[in-house]
Amino acid sequence: MHTTAASITAEIRQVNDEFETHFEQGDAAALASLYTRRAMLLPAGMEPVQGTDKIESFWRVGMNMGMKQLKLKTTDVEELADTAIELGTYTVFGAQHQVLDQGKYLVVWKEEQGRWKLHQDIWNSSLPVPVL
Amino acid sequence: MHTTAASITAEIRQVNDEFETHFEQGDAAALASLYTRRAMLLPAGMEPVQGTDKIESFWRVGMNMGMKQLKLKTTDVEELADTAIELGTYTVFGAQHQVLDQGKYLVVWKEEQGRWKLHQDIWNSSLPVPVL
Repeated sequence: MHTTAASITAEIRQVNDEFETHFEQGDAAALASLYTRRAMLLPAGMEPVQGTDKIESFWRVGMNMGMKQLKLKTTDVEELADTAIELGTYTVFGAQHQVLDQGKYLVVWKEEQGRWKLHQDIWNSSLPVPVL
Repeated sequence: MHTTAASITAEIRQVNDEFETHFEQGDAAALASLYTRRAMLLPAGMEPVQGTDKIESFWRVGMNMGMKQLKLKTTDVEELADTAIELGTYTVFGAQHQVLDQGKYLVVWKEEQGRWKLHQDIWNSSLPVPVL
């Protein structure tokens, strides 16, 4: 039986809540466990990052560089069988709760072992690019 | 009858070929016509851009800033009913064929009026972020 779009949005919100919590606790391993095994991160300024271990390292580096909190806000979810496409906005905060970055993201979610997990995760900043 | 993944990849390649041609010809209107009517661009350094007219303006501004050629290379396509998710890499060239930018993208395609069209288009640079 297919779940409804409303319940998928709620399930994704629940995982995003966990994402925010793990992030705030600096727990990169727990964060990485929210992704599928073959998941791909597509961060700005570097090549794609694939797989649980590399995703964990990526987030650990970000935390070590001063990212203390990451807030996610879903703007749209579309369900397609075992896949969901989420569009949203993010804000990253530093230790003094200052905004380090804000932008938008697109996440392709997959059901894996009965849970919705992040499978492809791409984002970019909405802040103006510094003109050199 | 559903088309096969191979044929969808070929159909997307064909639209991407048109994208490259329109881009090289500086034809922002033709480029915008490859997107669905409600399509959303998610460019770095600014808020999302939605709808045919604004997408046309976005690409015209890029062309006027010196982007002469944009090459697209698909790395993965997944089909989900009337939707396809494409992952790829891009390279932007200037007038002297110098590389202005290169990175990766994720495009959600939709069938509209019997054609595959770009519906959600997000990308970011893979070049190192300048440290200020």
